[in-house]
Amino acid sequence: MELIDGKATAAAIKQEIAAEVRQMLAAGKRAPHLAAILVGHDGGSETYVAAKVKACEECGFTSTLLRFESDITQEQLLAEVERLNQDPEVDGFIVQLPLPKHIDSQRVIEAIDYRKDVDGFHPVNVGRLSIGLPCFVSATPMGIMDLLERYHIETKGKHCVVLGRSNIVGKPVASLMMQKAYPGNATVTVCHSASENLKQICASADILIAAIGQPEFVTADMVKEGATVIDVGTTRVPDATKKSGFKLKGDVKFDEVAPKCAFITPVPGGVGPMTICSLMKNTLKAGKGVNW
Amino acid sequence: MELIDGKATAAAIKQEIAAEVRQMLAAGKRAPHLAAILVGHDGGSETYVAAKVKACEECGFTSTLLRFESDITQEQLLAEVERLNQDPEVDGFIVQLPLPKHIDSQRVIEAIDYRKDVDGFHPVNVGRLSIGLPCFVSATPMGIMDLLERYHIETKGKHCVVLGRSNIVGKPVASLMMQKAYPGNATVTVCHSASENLKQICASADILIAAIGQPEFVTADMVKEGATVIDVGTTRVPDATKKSGFKLKGDVKFDEVAPKCAFITPVPGGVGPMTICSLMKNTLKAGKGVNW
Repeated sequence: MELIDGKATAAAIKQEIAAEVRQMLAAGKRAPHLAAILVGHDGGSETYVAAKVKACEECGFTSTLLRFESDITQEQLLAEVERLNQDPEVDGFIVQLPLPKHIDSQRVIEAIDYRKDVDGFHPVNVGRLSIGLPCFVSATPMGIMDLLERYHIETKGKHCVVLGRSNIVGKPVASLMMQKAYPGNATVTVCHSASENLKQICASADILIAAIGQPEFVTADMVKEGATVIDVGTTRVPDATKKSGFKLKGDVKFDEVAPKCAFITPVPGGVGPMTICSLMKNTLKAGKGVNW
Repeated sequence: MELIDGKATAAAIKQEIAAEVRQMLAAGKRAPHLAAILVGHDGGSETYVAAKVKACEECGFTSTLLRFESDITQEQLLAEVERLNQDPEVDGFIVQLPLPKHIDSQRVIEAIDYRKDVDGFHPVNVGRLSIGLPCFVSATPMGIMDLLERYHIETKGKHCVVLGRSNIVGKPVASLMMQKAYPGNATVTVCHSASENLKQICASADILIAAIGQPEFVTADMVKEGATVIDVGTTRVPDATKKSGFKLKGDVKFDEVAPKCAFITPVPGGVGPMTICSLMKNTLKAGKGVNW
């Protein structure tokens, strides 16, 4: 069993990005510039945005954090999005989710110019991903693909089972895994809460991607000997021994599943660190210029 | 075994559409208007477009056929697309494929206003389909869903295997079948030319959708007893006994597979007649006004 080290992989990718940025600067270009819109003071959102700003620094990017109180109107927020769409100094930007209830998140996402949509949530990017055209791939699916690639995991013709059909993980990673590319070119099965014979289907997977948000859902009997298991789950479970008061639990019962695996991602330290790294890759791409 | 009659189903749907159009007219509205751009004189394209115009008549739609010689430049064609985008009298339009080699088809598809893209090929519609938002669904996948629905075929939790990963059938029908809806909510497997254990995977399907364009590829040993088989294949095979000089062959070896099935679509007369009917449904939708 080999542990897939997302933390080390993410660090290596960020170093590669930083090297590219130094080359851009040396060539007289400006650094890629990521802007982030943060509405309100949700604890999780504050943490994520801070981590994104920090990653920008590590990569040598310019970053701008635009903060708004949670009583901002939808119209005001859409006006800010439009301002960023028009700003030639901003290569890409994100609107940190969740947004307050009085704002239609989907409306805001669709207002973003898809050529600056480094989160990859705009329908144009989702559609281009499915069709197999150049696009911004959303963070978690791209992180998973990078891990498979960097660990040279065979995917062609293999059976990849995706547990969960969310718009931000399950569906896009399934899309990527079925494309005629590496990583990809796999037989892809998407299963979910309504699936019959779930255990049996999971047990037939060469590559199992668990993204349902149910701690320790995947048990040893659901995993084939020699499989690769990618655990996307990051549920916060109360833990008094931690300073934060919680610990992160994956969707996989790691202790019993790991011994059966060829490769497995831990939680934390697996897919998690890759997501911000994917956002940085998209920002670099945006900074180099998008012509699709 | 029950035969799924696509011809009769398509006829029934067209009658329903015609009834709706009569209501629209009675309410003082104008009929939905479909425009079609046809470039060159490809025999297949001529046939398809003529069938679409005829279906428009059956539904009570207005239709406009715009013909161009195959030496039309890409710029000229894009200008025509833009003219139709702007024309308030045209609710939806299609550009019949294939286009001459000097024209970038994808570029043309993306130039269509997605709110008039009744073929459902624009990345915005593909993306919205995947996300589960209102959209124009492309013709063949929608036709398949209509057949499953009209024959009350259970899909929830069932294993749906899609053979083929094309952008116009395999991928979008897989997207639809995994949505939390009826028809849908199925466990979906997409397999293709690179898939290992293809026969075994197909044999585990409750619903098998064959869309690989290889005549009689699916044999009896690849089908589970009691399965529903949807045959999307329409390969032209030479046949001297036919006036046209060819006959249509499906992807399924019908004679040996049919006895094992609960439901099966024939070729011709199965999925085929449904596709133009789906285009009519999209045109009606466009005619009623799209606000997404």
